[in-house]
Amino acid sequence: MSTFREDGGAALDWVASYLDRLREYPVLAQVEPGEIRAALPLAAPERAEPFANVLRDLDGVLMSGITHWQSPRHFAYFATTGSEPAILAELLIAALNQVGILWRASPALQELEEVTVDWLRQLLGLPDGLHGQIEDGASLSTMIALASAREARPESRVVLASEHAHSSVEKAARLLELDLRKVPGDDVFALRVDQLDLAEACAVVATIGTTGPTSIDPVAAIAERCEEEGVWLHVDAAYAGSAAVCPELRGLFSGWERADSIVVNPHKWLLVPQGCSVLWTRRPEEVRNAFSLVPEYLRVAEEVASLSEYTQVLGKRFRALKLWAVLRCYGREGLQAVIREHLRLAALFERWVGEEPGWELCAPRHFSLVCFRHEGSDELNEALLERVNASGDVFLSHTRLDGRYVVRLAIGNARTTEDDVRFAWEVLRREARGVVA
Amino acid sequence: MSTFREDGGAALDWVASYLDRLREYPVLAQVEPGEIRAALPLAAPERAEPFANVLRDLDGVLMSGITHWQSPRHFAYFATTGSEPAILAELLIAALNQVGILWRASPALQELEEVTVDWLRQLLGLPDGLHGQIEDGASLSTMIALASAREARPESRVVLASEHAHSSVEKAARLLELDLRKVPGDDVFALRVDQLDLAEACAVVATIGTTGPTSIDPVAAIAERCEEEGVWLHVDAAYAGSAAVCPELRGLFSGWERADSIVVNPHKWLLVPQGCSVLWTRRPEEVRNAFSLVPEYLRVAEEVASLSEYTQVLGKRFRALKLWAVLRCYGREGLQAVIREHLRLAALFERWVGEEPGWELCAPRHFSLVCFRHEGSDELNEALLERVNASGDVFLSHTRLDGRYVVRLAIGNARTTEDDVRFAWEVLRREARGVVA
Repeated sequence: MSTFREDGGAALDWVASYLDRLREYPVLAQVEPGEIRAALPLAAPERAEPFANVLRDLDGVLMSGITHWQSPRHFAYFATTGSEPAILAELLIAALNQVGILWRASPALQELEEVTVDWLRQLLGLPDGLHGQIEDGASLSTMIALASAREARPESRVVLASEHAHSSVEKAARLLELDLRKVPGDDVFALRVDQLDLAEACAVVATIGTTGPTSIDPVAAIAERCEEEGVWLHVDAAYAGSAAVCPELRGLFSGWERADSIVVNPHKWLLVPQGCSVLWTRRPEEVRNAFSLVPEYLRVAEEVASLSEYTQVLGKRFRALKLWAVLRCYGREGLQAVIREHLRLAALFERWVGEEPGWELCAPRHFSLVCFRHEGSDELNEALLERVNASGDVFLSHTRLDGRYVVRLAIGNARTTEDDVRFAWEVLRREARGVVA
Repeated sequence: MSTFREDGGAALDWVASYLDRLREYPVLAQVEPGEIRAALPLAAPERAEPFANVLRDLDGVLMSGITHWQSPRHFAYFATTGSEPAILAELLIAALNQVGILWRASPALQELEEVTVDWLRQLLGLPDGLHGQIEDGASLSTMIALASAREARPESRVVLASEHAHSSVEKAARLLELDLRKVPGDDVFALRVDQLDLAEACAVVATIGTTGPTSIDPVAAIAERCEEEGVWLHVDAAYAGSAAVCPELRGLFSGWERADSIVVNPHKWLLVPQGCSVLWTRRPEEVRNAFSLVPEYLRVAEEVASLSEYTQVLGKRFRALKLWAVLRCYGREGLQAVIREHLRLAALFERWVGEEPGWELCAPRHFSLVCFRHEGSDELNEALLERVNASGDVFLSHTRLDGRYVVRLAIGNARTTEDDVRFAWEVLRREARGVVA
């Protein structure tokens, strides 16, 4: 294993050095389509190469095609953090290579998953007794929730969600052959409960922190209606849910405790690298009805329900280990500090935009995302954003609200400082002068 | 980052030492249900803890609940290997934390995925022009294939697969509300083509290397029928597909080059840790039709189809990096050497069983799996297997063939030597004496 120790030392050095120098890279990859592909050989090598070649080509070939999600100046989509404890946890996960197909195949995987999702439930102030599970991403979590809703009410084939709901709701509905009906949002982009027609509905998806403007649907009022009609309520808090770790923000989540299922992605705003979405449900038996089929070769003596009976997936990765590492190494206070700092920075940026002539805010800010635009046409704003991103200095993305092109600045990287946010604002104003000129 | 370097050094030491001592652990976790859960705190800590505590509790609390998939003496289900280059690649993947939601979000992720799956296609002798993609596991790959088949032929709602097909086919059919009809197998557990009624079928799933006895469906004959009727043929070679890296084994795969889609899991027999299933299709446009919906906020200037347009998932992990590391660090020759050695060891074990009075072989061996049983009742064999696994010395699993309880010895760990296989045989005979006595 001396080679492994040597290669591992080199890989670890690479990672430490990368994390040290995150601000030196252009945030958005500065390559053209096909450029990375063209720089790679057409076929795998005949003979084994040393691991050093992998690191060499990671630097020499791949890095120019990396968009730096770890950069403190990544403000696009929802900014994320692969935190240090979780990065090391991924090393452990790969080394242990657990395959969670049933309890005995990894008791530690199954029970740590049950425990960590319950820790997280408590941290977010959710009620006792929810059944939790970790999925790869929210697209799967939401699909599982809607499949369970369909199972619970097979004669009803309609899913209702706000026009601002995430595309994964549409994707899940399509896969499940459910009829997605989009409900209009109001002037603050929240689902209009008066437009909610629950006839034929098996599920409503309410979002706390929509992907475009991070608007908040009136979950309590929707829950009321769903309870009256026996319709499954799924709450998509994939991004914003992590903020509930701060008690002072719980008011924004009012009603989610009444949901039939809830998705929160620790890989978005809770410092866990990609591949950690938590789904809770108060109706685990209906999830199990929708997904359980235990084949002979997995039937064993222990009377323990397998994680795979609650999901589409059979062989689970040991994802709980990275969530566990984060919850341990940050603690409740550490997680709260990250969220609060992000809200402070977003409020600061919001104030700068609001006070600057020629710029306008485009949506109420609830969490760590600011929606804004420069005065002028959509084309001008689009050109502005392309210039900003092409500079490599910072990376932002856009959405469309009330038919207008809107720029989004999403704060969510734990390494982002006030200086980074100020720098983003300077870059935006600099490029705006260029576009206007 | 000095803490990261220190913590990383400790984590790396832990991993190197773990890989050195794999034979010292009981292969099957020796805990009772609930034991790990009971040893963990009821809530997350208030304050940050050092990463050293994670390693401490990994050893002190979790390790007793680990079933050692990395052990050379793990012969259950399909044995797998998280190889050293791939373990380190997972460290890099986590550090880069790419989120492949569209091309610009990580050109390197998308293009390396395209390139590595094409390298693998060539290594396996599959035809040019297949569209490849990496999914988390075969359950998702098969679900994507069947959703595409449904999309291509919406009026036909039947899926046909052998009675020996993997449970994921049934799970996918259920999710997609397709009617799965199981086709009987013949006396060597291969799908009976004469029993294949393609009326109303949108898809047939043929398996090369079934999960129970690793039987091989007559893919060429099935392809012939599917082509005549315009039915989608999905080939499940999740386990066995990796063996096609050896040209002398290609005869076992005859016909798979005519499939509409094929799944092979490098995380099974190709040295990649959990979370790497490759799906190829010759009909990418129908996959895209089934899954593409590009929302406004992901519409950007580049005219590049996103990986997410071909799958249920939106934010992909950088899985290609670990496949790339394996293909580089083993090369074609290295991969062939692993497969050939596993076949040699399986043939050896098969001979020992076949020559030993009181034992019988229960299925033809095509790859690295041997199905066998001791003379006597199912109960005796079940008791035998439970004793073997309870010893912790080796870990095997079972299936049921022709209504009988059958023990499976699956060779698939790159660290397994002839001594390990001989040891397994000794443990089996030792425990058989105990059961009979």
